[in-house]
Amino acid sequence: MTEWVVGRNPVYEVLRAERREVLRLWVAQKTDKKGRLADVMNLAAKRGLPIEFVPRDQIDPLGEHHQGVALEVGEYPYSSLFDIFDRAKQREEPPFLLLLDTVQDTHNLGALLRTAEAVGVHGVLLPLRRTATVTPAVVSVSSGASEHLLITQTNLARAIEDLKGEGVWVYGLERSLQAKSLPEVDLSGPLALVVGNEARGMRALVRESCDVLLQLPMRGKVDSLNAAVAGSVALYYAWGARGFSRSTIDVKLES
Amino acid sequence: MTEWVVGRNPVYEVLRAERREVLRLWVAQKTDKKGRLADVMNLAAKRGLPIEFVPRDQIDPLGEHHQGVALEVGEYPYSSLFDIFDRAKQREEPPFLLLLDTVQDTHNLGALLRTAEAVGVHGVLLPLRRTATVTPAVVSVSSGASEHLLITQTNLARAIEDLKGEGVWVYGLERSLQAKSLPEVDLSGPLALVVGNEARGMRALVRESCDVLLQLPMRGKVDSLNAAVAGSVALYYAWGARGFSRSTIDVKLES
Repeated sequence: MTEWVVGRNPVYEVLRAERREVLRLWVAQKTDKKGRLADVMNLAAKRGLPIEFVPRDQIDPLGEHHQGVALEVGEYPYSSLFDIFDRAKQREEPPFLLLLDTVQDTHNLGALLRTAEAVGVHGVLLPLRRTATVTPAVVSVSSGASEHLLITQTNLARAIEDLKGEGVWVYGLERSLQAKSLPEVDLSGPLALVVGNEARGMRALVRESCDVLLQLPMRGKVDSLNAAVAGSVALYYAWGARGFSRSTIDVKLES
Repeated sequence: MTEWVVGRNPVYEVLRAERREVLRLWVAQKTDKKGRLADVMNLAAKRGLPIEFVPRDQIDPLGEHHQGVALEVGEYPYSSLFDIFDRAKQREEPPFLLLLDTVQDTHNLGALLRTAEAVGVHGVLLPLRRTATVTPAVVSVSSGASEHLLITQTNLARAIEDLKGEGVWVYGLERSLQAKSLPEVDLSGPLALVVGNEARGMRALVRESCDVLLQLPMRGKVDSLNAAVAGSVALYYAWGARGFSRSTIDVKLES
């Protein structure tokens, strides 16, 4: 099974990450081939991937906001929880994970993946059913962040038990009387953040498995946030609790 | 000109805020009239608003996710910059504003309004042109937060000069070498945060008017965030710099 990823940044990140099989690159005729599109064509050439110049309307059915570029690719390469722990270990950091318990909306999943990648999360866990998955639309909304992230589809309640076994604290994000407020908790240790469904929150079994229920302070009349926003704010505070650290490895690579 | 707001929470907030003219409430026949829908019908009854029970498919063309309820209302009541300063004064707080410089996407505008309301922003400024405005779709995405917020449409560059004249510091959010990182700046004083267009950032004149350019720390490979997420994280840090304060007035009203 192949699929089409469209848009300059998403296609660029798929090529740059080198994690998927790539089959064909379509570029719209009469497109100005500079900037990010030039980067895409360079990466394709390096990889020996044929570039086909096609009429723009041949790309239109493949996805919104395609910006004149589409890449035919193999399926999204899901990882395992083992890979995620391994990444934390390689970076010499306490584990930092994001669990999405039946998030439905493509925009929310894409935005959360984008934030997760930006703050250096080691991996993202999705449940086996009733969840948005890493479709080409999500790759686009995530601006290609999906391609660099380790993402696992698994039984979440069981994964939470594994995480706890490894000393990871599991924080479930929800608005409730039981939940502690962000400024009251220490998010600097090994941590997994759970974000629930947009309407119904976490499923009962997942919620009960959490070590701590956590909420963002709010003072308005409406008293609710978009799920991607709430999750992203919590991820930033968790990273902030680590001093907005860069990993030892990253710093080595840069210097 | 009237318009239709749909969905249980959005309709509830329009009625609760009592800021718009309301004309007709449509409720889908055979809908279970409990929870938030019961709240809506109670508020309508209190206000002497006739409730019409209509076939569900009569509501379908009025908007997505209508949940069997639609309210015909007058135009969105935009405020003035004066109203916004007045709200800050009434709450006995340093001004806290959000400026959106040509944000285009309905989802982003709605999500940003929702966060702005949750953190107690005194008002939101939109430019006169090339911006998403407070349409019924935005009211829905904001979950009705729009109805409690003071929102002004105005010349942003000129408004920034007015803000500076009142001692407000203007922070423009952008990813650049010039921008200071969030942990380096003190966001506790009178503050306006500017979020630019999703693709092009702030317009030149607005950008140049900012006192400080500000960016969120990032450590990933993709190095970009969704505009609503970035703005929301910055708003939370600004509120956090005020100790997640509740206003003197709010605390008085609650006790």
